[in-house]
Amino acid sequence: MSAPPSATQIGAAMMSRDTTAHWLGIALDEVRAGYARMHMTVRQEMANGHGICHGGMIFTLADTTFAYACNSHNQVTVASSCMIDFLSPGQIGDLLTAEATEQHLRGRFGVYDIRVSNQKGELIALFRGKSAQLKEQVVPA
Amino acid sequence: MSAPPSATQIGAAMMSRDTTAHWLGIALDEVRAGYARMHMTVRQEMANGHGICHGGMIFTLADTTFAYACNSHNQVTVASSCMIDFLSPGQIGDLLTAEATEQHLRGRFGVYDIRVSNQKGELIALFRGKSAQLKEQVVPA
Amino acid sequence: MSAPPSATQIGAAMMSRDTTAHWLGIALDEVRAGYARMHMTVRQEMANGHGICHGGMIFTLADTTFAYACNSHNQVTVASSCMIDFLSPGQIGDLLTAEATEQHLRGRFGVYDIRVSNQKGELIALFRGKSAQLKEQVVPA
Amino acid sequence: MSAPPSATQIGAAMMSRDTTAHWLGIALDEVRAGYARMHMTVRQEMANGHGICHGGMIFTLADTTFAYACNSHNQVTVASSCMIDFLSPGQIGDLLTAEATEQHLRGRFGVYDIRVSNQKGELIALFRGKSAQLKEQVVPA
Repeated sequence: MSAPPSATQIGAAMMSRDTTAHWLGIALDEVRAGYARMHMTVRQEMANGHGICHGGMIFTLADTTFAYACNSHNQVTVASSCMIDFLSPGQIGDLLTAEATEQHLRGRFGVYDIRVSNQKGELIALFRGKSAQLKEQVVPA
Repeated sequence: MSAPPSATQIGAAMMSRDTTAHWLGIALDEVRAGYARMHMTVRQEMANGHGICHGGMIFTLADTTFAYACNSHNQVTVASSCMIDFLSPGQIGDLLTAEATEQHLRGRFGVYDIRVSNQKGELIALFRGKSAQLKEQVVPA
Repeated sequence: MSAPPSATQIGAAMMSRDTTAHWLGIALDEVRAGYARMHMTVRQEMANGHGICHGGMIFTLADTTFAYACNSHNQVTVASSCMIDFLSPGQIGDLLTAEATEQHLRGRFGVYDIRVSNQKGELIALFRGKSAQLKEQVVPA
Repeated sequence: MSAPPSATQIGAAMMSRDTTAHWLGIALDEVRAGYARMHMTVRQEMANGHGICHGGMIFTLADTTFAYACNSHNQVTVASSCMIDFLSPGQIGDLLTAEATEQHLRGRFGVYDIRVSNQKGELIALFRGKSAQLKEQVVPA
């Protein structure tokens, strides 16, 4: 009988097949039960029609961090809905960090808050995500 | 004295500098005052750690369509907040279409609803975005 | 064997025990499968600290209309989350009408949009609610 | 020249004209700059058609607490949008407490998180509100 996988092992397993994270340069800094922190540098191709970081890219960083936090219990978990407030624009070259913390988990359903900041510590966006667990495990025990 | 730019001209001007849209293969189908429709094919690199389309990519398509609808009045307009409900997963290879319609615009502030469907006409996501106009024009008159 | 209850019968059954609706003077105008319309007059006691209609009262009208729309299929259904945009203030004496329309229903989960307008037809608020069906029936068949 | 009013004085001024708060029995426990805590007992007339506390009443408690937190800087401030997740039902007789904390305030716009708990410390709802300051002061200096 083997020990249950650690949050670090679960995060590594997800990262190994997370094509989008690799493609966008999203890196996992830390994952614990109900928590994850990731970062991404805003690249030139992430600009929108106004020359600032596309909101979809900020969302994707936050949503990815949310995914690692809510899957950290080793139950495959998907987002059911998310909302994001854009507080300050992200600029090309910015180093954005997202931190996800579990606010509530009861039965299959959870709520997570994600804060996105830039390299100066300025808050760029606030994100709240709702999750639903499925039946499979991320790393089969 | 020249005529004000059409929504089509405004959309084309935005598209000419919208690096993210080009990068992700998001194409503009139609833009009118308060309305836009765009599409994107889900590529292999858009998969998340569970092998389905990353929610951030669906969001980015919806958010981009939102941007073209709310900038169609030729006033530079940014998103202040967005929420998205993920209703069905997007699969690799799916052709996703997003349609944005203005629900309200008063003073500088607007509300837009975006529906994302796949090639079978199934609803993939519902998105609601809030916008704020800035002082500049998209295409200087 | 009896016919399934109509949406009108389901709405009447809910209204007969809906203490809050009676207390606030919320009246049911129409209910059909996936749809409801209700109205409420803004009374003096519904003012907030700034002398305009309390946002909670506008929300309650919208949320009640949402409940009648999502319970119209005769499955007991509760709200899991709601969001509201306040677009214009409600004034004391205003007659507010809320109209709820089903946007999506798949399995147990639904999304409903509710528009709240005043007696001049001005849009006061936009509301989006997510619902989850439980196992019981509203009117036992 | 007089000292600026304290958050306690601002809260008291708002409470003196907050008809809805008095009507529903919402009481102010504490208010500081960017923070407020209030409570309400769920009364029989706050039941919905399913016999549990109406979501609109939980929202109203949270929204009121949000208002006291965002007006605590003595600038008249209104809600522009709010979202609420209903996590556990409120029962008739429950004592609900809402706690609002400022997450962000830049220029005229703020974001506040409100947690609603019952007398057992169970989380009933999570609420996020966006605020916009107007030009007037709550207590003229």
